[in-house]
Amino acid sequence: MARRAAGRFVGWFRPVRNTGSGTLQDQLYTAIRRAVLGGELAAGERLPSSRALASDLGLGRNTVVAAVERLTAEGYLTSRRGAGLFVAADLPVEDLRPPADSRPPILSRRSAAAPDLHAEREPALLRPFALGTASLDAFPLELWRRLAVQTLRRRPGDLLGYGDPRGLPALRQALATYLADSRGVVCSPETVMIVSGAQQALDLIARLLLDPGDVAAVEDPGYAGARDALASAGARLVPVAVDNQGFDPAILAGLSPAPKLAMLTPSHQFPLGMTLPASRRLALLAEARSRGIWIVEDDYDCEYRYGGPPLQALQGLDGGERVLYVGTFSKVLFPGLRLGYVVLPEPLVDGFLRLKTAADGFAPGWPQAILAEFIAQGYLAQHIRRMRVLYRRRRSALLTAIERHAGDLLVPRLSEAGLHLTVEFRDGRDDKKASRALQEAGLTVGPLSRYAVARGLSGLLLGFAAFPEAELEAAVQRLVSVLR
Amino acid sequence: MARRAAGRFVGWFRPVRNTGSGTLQDQLYTAIRRAVLGGELAAGERLPSSRALASDLGLGRNTVVAAVERLTAEGYLTSRRGAGLFVAADLPVEDLRPPADSRPPILSRRSAAAPDLHAEREPALLRPFALGTASLDAFPLELWRRLAVQTLRRRPGDLLGYGDPRGLPALRQALATYLADSRGVVCSPETVMIVSGAQQALDLIARLLLDPGDVAAVEDPGYAGARDALASAGARLVPVAVDNQGFDPAILAGLSPAPKLAMLTPSHQFPLGMTLPASRRLALLAEARSRGIWIVEDDYDCEYRYGGPPLQALQGLDGGERVLYVGTFSKVLFPGLRLGYVVLPEPLVDGFLRLKTAADGFAPGWPQAILAEFIAQGYLAQHIRRMRVLYRRRRSALLTAIERHAGDLLVPRLSEAGLHLTVEFRDGRDDKKASRALQEAGLTVGPLSRYAVARGLSGLLLGFAAFPEAELEAAVQRLVSVLR
Repeated sequence: MARRAAGRFVGWFRPVRNTGSGTLQDQLYTAIRRAVLGGELAAGERLPSSRALASDLGLGRNTVVAAVERLTAEGYLTSRRGAGLFVAADLPVEDLRPPADSRPPILSRRSAAAPDLHAEREPALLRPFALGTASLDAFPLELWRRLAVQTLRRRPGDLLGYGDPRGLPALRQALATYLADSRGVVCSPETVMIVSGAQQALDLIARLLLDPGDVAAVEDPGYAGARDALASAGARLVPVAVDNQGFDPAILAGLSPAPKLAMLTPSHQFPLGMTLPASRRLALLAEARSRGIWIVEDDYDCEYRYGGPPLQALQGLDGGERVLYVGTFSKVLFPGLRLGYVVLPEPLVDGFLRLKTAADGFAPGWPQAILAEFIAQGYLAQHIRRMRVLYRRRRSALLTAIERHAGDLLVPRLSEAGLHLTVEFRDGRDDKKASRALQEAGLTVGPLSRYAVARGLSGLLLGFAAFPEAELEAAVQRLVSVLR
Repeated sequence: MARRAAGRFVGWFRPVRNTGSGTLQDQLYTAIRRAVLGGELAAGERLPSSRALASDLGLGRNTVVAAVERLTAEGYLTSRRGAGLFVAADLPVEDLRPPADSRPPILSRRSAAAPDLHAEREPALLRPFALGTASLDAFPLELWRRLAVQTLRRRPGDLLGYGDPRGLPALRQALATYLADSRGVVCSPETVMIVSGAQQALDLIARLLLDPGDVAAVEDPGYAGARDALASAGARLVPVAVDNQGFDPAILAGLSPAPKLAMLTPSHQFPLGMTLPASRRLALLAEARSRGIWIVEDDYDCEYRYGGPPLQALQGLDGGERVLYVGTFSKVLFPGLRLGYVVLPEPLVDGFLRLKTAADGFAPGWPQAILAEFIAQGYLAQHIRRMRVLYRRRRSALLTAIERHAGDLLVPRLSEAGLHLTVEFRDGRDDKKASRALQEAGLTVGPLSRYAVARGLSGLLLGFAAFPEAELEAAVQRLVSVLR
């Protein structure tokens, strides 16, 4: 009997052994499990002894014993002292393969509301006029590497272990000083939170402040990533048309009921580029205070202002009462760093941390420590100064090339800041079609209408920061030849 | 008139200059803005010429011009050609400070549902018996640093730019191979998603599959982080009591309506430590298929099994149809890395990526590249083998010390795996009180009841992986003296 059973094993084992991966023990484990699950070994059936199996299969006794122990530990086999080894009697193997379930997967309604943003994202290809990326060639990689090695040597425990959900204290300290000095942000290390890029700040803020069905005001046109975060929190989005001065607080005042929050880009409206003037800032804050509206200030590329020093943040004017200030290092350093921050009104800190903890715990330690050193040693300010010179040159090269080659096709929007230029079509043509044609011709150009909610706008967004002047001029010529 | 106005400026400027930070230009900007916002300079009022201001304040003309240009750009001042400089007429400054808003902040209901997990988290202090952390001393830091420098040199563009929301392709490839070989997970690089630690996987899965009010089954006792993620998605949690074999599919079968998902730890039940036997695995999968329940397999510390090779994943038995497989590198490498993964049934991939993109875009590039090399070059498998030897020793030292010093107080639960031991009190005393007393005595010990939902359990969780044998023995002695 034992010999006959062992004979059956030889039959099952051979094909597994011939094609299988892993050790012989893995292969035997797999063969027996497959026989049990497939019903070839019946529930309760007695198995040959491990000695008999080893001899018939040409395996070492230890190999067989180890595989059998594993199958016993997992409950496929049971061993009764003195009686031998049996296939477990209680395995409901016949239930394992009912007719394949052909129902569609049942997702949450909320996940259906999250737009297909990732499909819009460009592949890693960095070609003109890719948006939202700094000049990575100009990034001081060697310095970054040196700081990386230093911080890892100096205090590995801080960087390897569980971290503070608010962020590394040294980074919050350096950042609080930097934001107060450079942007007039009212903050302390206790109200600065480190997050995985500005996108996470927007997502957590949306979940912190909004329940499904709550109203949120957004700029039209405006940043799609912000709309995505709000939409995936179930918010009802009310677009507020941006005029030549930017977001209009009078429209906000006319909304009834009052939105729970308004998300905007006061320093440099995305994508149109204007700066919100002081009168509107004050009116907006007055409105926010009297009606209890939270203002989310997305200061995504405030560092690069070519007409003068960076603007003071709306948050500083407010004193940090109704304004949540969001920033990122994706534009000023590099997107792959995935570190952003949010400065919160003090009463929101606890709730935010609860959500951050449930969302992903805390930001990784090592990159935070490198960044903290980079800021504290003055390299950030220095890098921004250098990049401002570089980008100003690239920006004017782009403007000049557009004037020279495309003056009859495109009107650049006036803007003194940022890493991209928005141009509108003189003939108002379909910008999505144009953008697709440019894409095929090797240019990465986003249509302006992608950022609009309820408005008819037709134009292109041209990122210039990552491309040398000559490349920009050549790319404009290519662009013009495709558009004509 | 100009001279008189300049005289007023001197009065406002001096205190700012004496205490202010930043350049003289910053200080002048701040002084004028403050005067405008404070109403000391009336709306529409004419300002002295920049020449007069410069002379009265003892500043360079360029300094004054730059500050005035900034104030003009921001809309606090307006300049009329030929007529001079004026305070803007349209500033609603009187609205800026209404009586302080004393209403409590209005958070979303959902954020109130997110439990106060971060307060429970231990500070970075690594002392016995801190949970969930590997032996950071034994981590090959120099090797990690070397791989870091190499990857940064070799392909900085990949690491600095915008990344794939699914994760770095090289890492998904290495991980898919590793998971198939070591855990029998059925996957391809296209179904492996890289996330910011297992916590983010749980959070995104909850949002992907559950709407507020949907039912989710959880183990009781079970992992609090999983409950947090489900709760913050608005799920209604149904605790399923864990018996000596682990999660009981018969209880799941009895639930009506069927939960949308069940979250469990089949390899090594957290916190009790048993392994789900094959019969229950098969019954669970049959139940999941017939009623359309998603199973989330949280395989948080599967790598460390001391009685034999790591168990095959439930996911592999299912073929990846109803099971979402979640893993982390926090336990096997270090928590500060913040990288985890989830293997998804193919139909869930798109929805998951939409949520990941809206949540935080993608995982940072550099750590992913280091990890990909670490796995592909075989260092991960090697590290796990080394750590398994180390942890097995530490685990038996802890067991021996408990037997020797605390046999009359504590009963260890049998478990062949993991980085902690769960012990129960023989006298069933209040474990929260005991845990607080131990905390004060310098030991980090979590009460078992913290992980229970509806059950009365009393015990302690003792992490052993990060502590040498002698330290463990001394800590057990301290623990006993506190408990007596």
